[in-house]
Amino acid sequence: MALASVDLGGTNIAVAIGVADGTILREGQIATEGHLGPLGLLERIAELVKELAPEGVEALGMGVPGLCDPKSGETLFLPNLPTQWRGVKVSLMLGARLGCAVYLLNDARMAALGELDYGYGRECADFAFFTLGTGIGGGLVLDGKLRLEGGELGHQSILPDGASCGCGSNGCLEVLASAPALIAEGVRLILTGQAPGLLRLVEGDLNRVTPKVMSECGDEAVLAAIEKAARYLGIGVANVVTILHPRMVGLGGGLAQMGDLLFEPVRDEMRRRVRMFPVDDVRIELSQTGARAGTLGGIALARRAGVI
Amino acid sequence: MALASVDLGGTNIAVAIGVADGTILREGQIATEGHLGPLGLLERIAELVKELAPEGVEALGMGVPGLCDPKSGETLFLPNLPTQWRGVKVSLMLGARLGCAVYLLNDARMAALGELDYGYGRECADFAFFTLGTGIGGGLVLDGKLRLEGGELGHQSILPDGASCGCGSNGCLEVLASAPALIAEGVRLILTGQAPGLLRLVEGDLNRVTPKVMSECGDEAVLAAIEKAARYLGIGVANVVTILHPRMVGLGGGLAQMGDLLFEPVRDEMRRRVRMFPVDDVRIELSQTGARAGTLGGIALARRAGVI
Repeated sequence: MALASVDLGGTNIAVAIGVADGTILREGQIATEGHLGPLGLLERIAELVKELAPEGVEALGMGVPGLCDPKSGETLFLPNLPTQWRGVKVSLMLGARLGCAVYLLNDARMAALGELDYGYGRECADFAFFTLGTGIGGGLVLDGKLRLEGGELGHQSILPDGASCGCGSNGCLEVLASAPALIAEGVRLILTGQAPGLLRLVEGDLNRVTPKVMSECGDEAVLAAIEKAARYLGIGVANVVTILHPRMVGLGGGLAQMGDLLFEPVRDEMRRRVRMFPVDDVRIELSQTGARAGTLGGIALARRAGVI
Repeated sequence: MALASVDLGGTNIAVAIGVADGTILREGQIATEGHLGPLGLLERIAELVKELAPEGVEALGMGVPGLCDPKSGETLFLPNLPTQWRGVKVSLMLGARLGCAVYLLNDARMAALGELDYGYGRECADFAFFTLGTGIGGGLVLDGKLRLEGGELGHQSILPDGASCGCGSNGCLEVLASAPALIAEGVRLILTGQAPGLLRLVEGDLNRVTPKVMSECGDEAVLAAIEKAARYLGIGVANVVTILHPRMVGLGGGLAQMGDLLFEPVRDEMRRRVRMFPVDDVRIELSQTGARAGTLGGIALARRAGVI
């Protein structure tokens, strides 16, 4: 029987049906419409799962953007969703609607689980995975096992007196190197006349500034902004390597699609800062599951029946 | 039969004879006399072990200040010792002299092993241990197991553009919060007339400035310097908690003896910066093995016959 994967984001909810070997059979997406509330959204998710898999599913793995209790299948704190999402018994409610077991996990940890079962994990037992999107999430696999505790790689303090982060701390990696931080800098450079190429590419529409467009504009100031964000990310990577020395550091999410513009400064900063042991054995690479780490993580979670 | 522990430091070498339950029977110390070279020093160590345990020892655990290969029992890179210490087959040479197995480990990881077997490990499966001395070392115990990879908690980048660290990077925790860094600041405050109390306590002898004396002098500027170093340490602790969420963070070594002057800012900074999950369950405490974490780590390493 098929397995289902749900990735609940602040903007969209990605739903997929797959099988244990990681093959994705069908996919769908709905908007995260806040006015529906948790009950309404779970209803929509259940409907979409039933539509994509009329024959039913054996189990469902679901990622949520924040803190949850995998044991009770309950949300705890989802900073980018309305507060009604606190303490929602997702596994119970969605499971009752679908007649199958539903397993819950933080979205970035779920993406790391996808990499463990269908990506990096096939070749290495220790890796760190950074998901670079609206926020910066993380997951750690140590000795072949996903660590459920901690993992908030995007909330290391990189500049102790830096800008306020949404989490309540200051100078977190997320506030320095996430997509919104980079986009805000791109917009600022347009407004101050330092990014004529970018202005042309977005045809004057500031809403069209994305990391990808920024990486293609050729403006010196924009490229410098990308390098600066990448170097902050490199410091965060260096800290994780210094602390845990995983042999693989994976980068996934939208920002990771910028290629060498992002990866070269990250690798350089890591080599510059980790000096206590040789790091020739540490690879920093793009997600092996492409943009599907989260989706595959949901399938992995369902296949494992929540046993991580 | 008894077990032996050797802790090779840049200044002193601590040798102890103990038994498997962690009881220390006899202890001795010799100076790390550089002119003797590795061979001469290993000879002195062997003599002291024989003197303290004439009946012989079953196994010996030895900590070295830097990088070593526990499998081959060879030193790799000991930054605070002369370069002849690179690639010394310590286990082989010392083992031959003593007629017993000799196991090698990084000194901070060995101290964490002491805490695992005879300290924190008795009550928690996950902890981070910072050794605050001439340098800042570290050890991580995850799921009841000492992690041999990484663990260089003192070489996180805290101020990316900060002062040069001995390791070759910049703004590492070690360069901001180690005993020498704090002492240098104490001396500077005396020389600039901002530490009259400290000057009195050391009776005008700048060589007598220690973290402990600094903590007792009552000078406002000196107390502020201690708090500043403690806050840097707190940022390093916060990063480790953010990344791994161990329920216990242990502080050991000379600086940890300053009590609340050190611990309060560290705890405060950790609570201020780790906001992605509740940290009420995280304790930050003094080493449970007192000043003996390293010594007991050597006994633990010998008892375990190198199996970590």
